[in-house]
Amino acid sequence: MNTLVAVAIAPFGIGDELSKEVAEIVSVIQKSGLPNRTTSMFTEIEGEWDEVMKVIKEATFVLAERGIRTEVVFKADIRPGYTNTLNGKLERLERALGERS
Amino acid sequence: MNTLVAVAIAPFGIGDELSKEVAEIVSVIQKSGLPNRTTSMFTEIEGEWDEVMKVIKEATFVLAERGIRTEVVFKADIRPGYTNTLNGKLERLERALGERS
Amino acid sequence: MNTLVAVAIAPFGIGDELSKEVAEIVSVIQKSGLPNRTTSMFTEIEGEWDEVMKVIKEATFVLAERGIRTEVVFKADIRPGYTNTLNGKLERLERALGERS
Amino acid sequence: MNTLVAVAIAPFGIGDELSKEVAEIVSVIQKSGLPNRTTSMFTEIEGEWDEVMKVIKEATFVLAERGIRTEVVFKADIRPGYTNTLNGKLERLERALGERS
Repeated sequence: MNTLVAVAIAPFGIGDELSKEVAEIVSVIQKSGLPNRTTSMFTEIEGEWDEVMKVIKEATFVLAERGIRTEVVFKADIRPGYTNTLNGKLERLERALGERS
Repeated sequence: MNTLVAVAIAPFGIGDELSKEVAEIVSVIQKSGLPNRTTSMFTEIEGEWDEVMKVIKEATFVLAERGIRTEVVFKADIRPGYTNTLNGKLERLERALGERS
Repeated sequence: MNTLVAVAIAPFGIGDELSKEVAEIVSVIQKSGLPNRTTSMFTEIEGEWDEVMKVIKEATFVLAERGIRTEVVFKADIRPGYTNTLNGKLERLERALGERS
Repeated sequence: MNTLVAVAIAPFGIGDELSKEVAEIVSVIQKSGLPNRTTSMFTEIEGEWDEVMKVIKEATFVLAERGIRTEVVFKADIRPGYTNTLNGKLERLERALGERS
């Protein structure tokens, strides 16, 4: 089942500058080979449910296995019959925005 | 790795009264045997990461496999060295609230 | 417009035991007079949009004004024509769960 | 207090193709004049807390005032002393990613 996810994984207890740890996490996601896009608040990933969840687990455990308290915030959109939604959803939105102006 | 999750799974495209579909989802979670608690916005589940994610997948697919667009929102707290956090976290909070008054 | 919210407000950079700070936040919410319920992952609040958002701002700024990096995660359900959804939504769900068994 | 937010606002009960309604919402956000970025799952907005919340209320009420059940999912990062985090946070992350390779 194709799954589009936005996920944010963050450590507690290591200070308030998190870019080094977030880079480790994003690096795991980028190496997964799944389509992905990182912005300032979330990383989007698309793939089969099991593939996406495997990457999220791996990225989360990078911190948790070092004993760091880790938060995962996650929003998924599972739309049967649709693929390439990381770009397609945005294209449908942009078309709808264009029709308004 | 012990994982505490609050999850909300909801269908799009079937109207705005969702209690029947949400009941199906909550029912899957309750049958899982994992500690859980449902309030008006989320269901909390606690267990090993793989156990919790298996239940969330099963509950999500109840809708998605019928062709329904399904949203999953979750927030997880993975705190190495802690178990029974579904209740323990709340107890620590209540103790801290007590010390304030 | 009646608004039901689940909110989690947390500090970064002060260590990984957050119960003291979370107690301060929950205390602000409880003093608001709005119907509310705290579980292990979120606090639910119900009221008019402006009332609810005023409380969330006040609770967030308890930390932010001390210079602490603060995260706010919330999920709101605005259902025109419905009030007392903090309890009513759960009652509709429990009725639907009852009809399944 | 400078606030960076990722927000997703969606209607329930109008079917499962939401691009027209989401375009209305994104259009309100784009007209606000606040820095913003829309991807497939969230729209990021940056500004003072009150400014950001005013836009989110306005965007939410576009649907809710028509009697549509509306969901708002929101994650905010308030980091005292930092501004232009919509881009700055991403630049710090990319620098940290560069140092890893």
